[in-house]
Amino acid sequence: MSLPERVTIKEVGPRDGLQNEKEEIKTDDKIEWINQLSETGLSYIEITSFVHPKWIPQLKDAVEVAKGIKRKEGITYAALVPNMKGLERAIEANVDEVSIFMSASESHNKKNINKTIDETYPVLREVVEEAKQEGKSVRGYVSTVFGCPYDGKVDEQQVINVCKNLFDMGIDELSLGDTIGVANPIQVGKFLDLIGTEFTKDQIALHFHDTRGMALANTLVSLEKGYYIFDGALGGLGGCPYAKGASGNVATDDLVHMLHEMGIQTGVDLDQLLQAGQLIQGKIEKSLPSKQMNICRQTSMI
Amino acid sequence: MSLPERVTIKEVGPRDGLQNEKEEIKTDDKIEWINQLSETGLSYIEITSFVHPKWIPQLKDAVEVAKGIKRKEGITYAALVPNMKGLERAIEANVDEVSIFMSASESHNKKNINKTIDETYPVLREVVEEAKQEGKSVRGYVSTVFGCPYDGKVDEQQVINVCKNLFDMGIDELSLGDTIGVANPIQVGKFLDLIGTEFTKDQIALHFHDTRGMALANTLVSLEKGYYIFDGALGGLGGCPYAKGASGNVATDDLVHMLHEMGIQTGVDLDQLLQAGQLIQGKIEKSLPSKQMNICRQTSMI
Repeated sequence: MSLPERVTIKEVGPRDGLQNEKEEIKTDDKIEWINQLSETGLSYIEITSFVHPKWIPQLKDAVEVAKGIKRKEGITYAALVPNMKGLERAIEANVDEVSIFMSASESHNKKNINKTIDETYPVLREVVEEAKQEGKSVRGYVSTVFGCPYDGKVDEQQVINVCKNLFDMGIDELSLGDTIGVANPIQVGKFLDLIGTEFTKDQIALHFHDTRGMALANTLVSLEKGYYIFDGALGGLGGCPYAKGASGNVATDDLVHMLHEMGIQTGVDLDQLLQAGQLIQGKIEKSLPSKQMNICRQTSMI
Repeated sequence: MSLPERVTIKEVGPRDGLQNEKEEIKTDDKIEWINQLSETGLSYIEITSFVHPKWIPQLKDAVEVAKGIKRKEGITYAALVPNMKGLERAIEANVDEVSIFMSASESHNKKNINKTIDETYPVLREVVEEAKQEGKSVRGYVSTVFGCPYDGKVDEQQVINVCKNLFDMGIDELSLGDTIGVANPIQVGKFLDLIGTEFTKDQIALHFHDTRGMALANTLVSLEKGYYIFDGALGGLGGCPYAKGASGNVATDDLVHMLHEMGIQTGVDLDQLLQAGQLIQGKIEKSLPSKQMNICRQTSMI
């Protein structure tokens, strides 16, 4: 097996994790947590979302968080923006990178964004163009790549069309989201073979959810195909909005642990990461579901 | 990727799961559960252990369980035996197959069996010979194949020697145990390449624990290497004796779910399996940790 020697981990917990937690975390606590994440060796942290607070009240303090954190050199601090209004706030807060998002499936896009896929493109195009003019790099998230909670399986060509359209707008990187955690390793392998003819590996990140326990197996097959950029949320923070109480994002700590055991470098210090996990676990006042955090609790390692 | 079209699942929950649960389950409840497992399409169920009740009081009713269950044609009902005394009870209870066990690491073997590895062989040899004379097939478990809680990494050649010695005794199949859930996919792949030169694939089962979340990734690499016999405990029953509260055996339901999603047949009906999971979950009065059982609870599918 020839696998990448090094993997880039993108921590999305402060955004994708916290937006799916019921508990509202105090702004100062978020800032403290992100500052601690900055000391773990991570090179990328998605810190918040500039979506309207009506939709995601948990992240209504986006500007305060972005302005309040201590920026460490070498780390990209990113934030999600849904539209021009969000982009303005993100620019005001001086994030390094903005992320735009849409779904590969019509029904999920409609429910999430209240637009058809075709209606979504011009909105995002304007955001990307403006962001680039402001000197920001842009990440694109595509949701429901491997399955939709409403439409079921999503046609692979449709996914690729959405990806192509986002790259045509000028995005720098695309994160392929298994939003409901239904992807299996065969499906992931086949899809990566398919998109491998369209895009290069440095353009593509994998964003797995562990709802059905397959996230690390899907990571393995992605590594085997040569992909090396993976999203995660520390501790498995967040959960799945489509099956309350079930796992959402793959846990960054479990991901980093497996990669290190496999001899693959991430630049992340797992002990420091778990300490940051303990901090946010204390703030949300519930046990984080990752295996690493579980072992820590049981063995009192931290 | 060329993977096996069909996988054999060996359900060890009634033995390896229940022996690690604090709660003592009533004999009638165990029988009811095993009878329900017999209706799921499983072809192999390890129903109990004839280890002395002083060591595993949870399974002191081994004879009653083995005699009380309804045997279904086509299913192998197996039980663990540590020595001749255990074998006598297993034969009295008329199980189809007996399993013997030892560790690949000296310290774990000593703590578990109170003998050195070399002292263990003659005890097991006698058991295997007698079992074969009684017409029973014999399965060998080797523990701590990929790591030991006391000795750390275990020398691969030492593991292979233990395996060879067990086959020399006349065992029919060997189950390679990642007892503390430390194996990573690279390690598993390399080890399977190594033993592939010594044994055939129909002789080897993989027994993964999910303590660090890598069980399904390790399953995937095993499938890629052509292996097709896997142990599991329904719902992830049991836990890990070395990290209380952490996961033990890979959950049969998560394993079956992934295999089916990958288009690999198991002969197991996942819905029936989850109903059997719900039954034992009710008896032990705690939430089983598998992803599938979690989704069931959250979505009230069953």
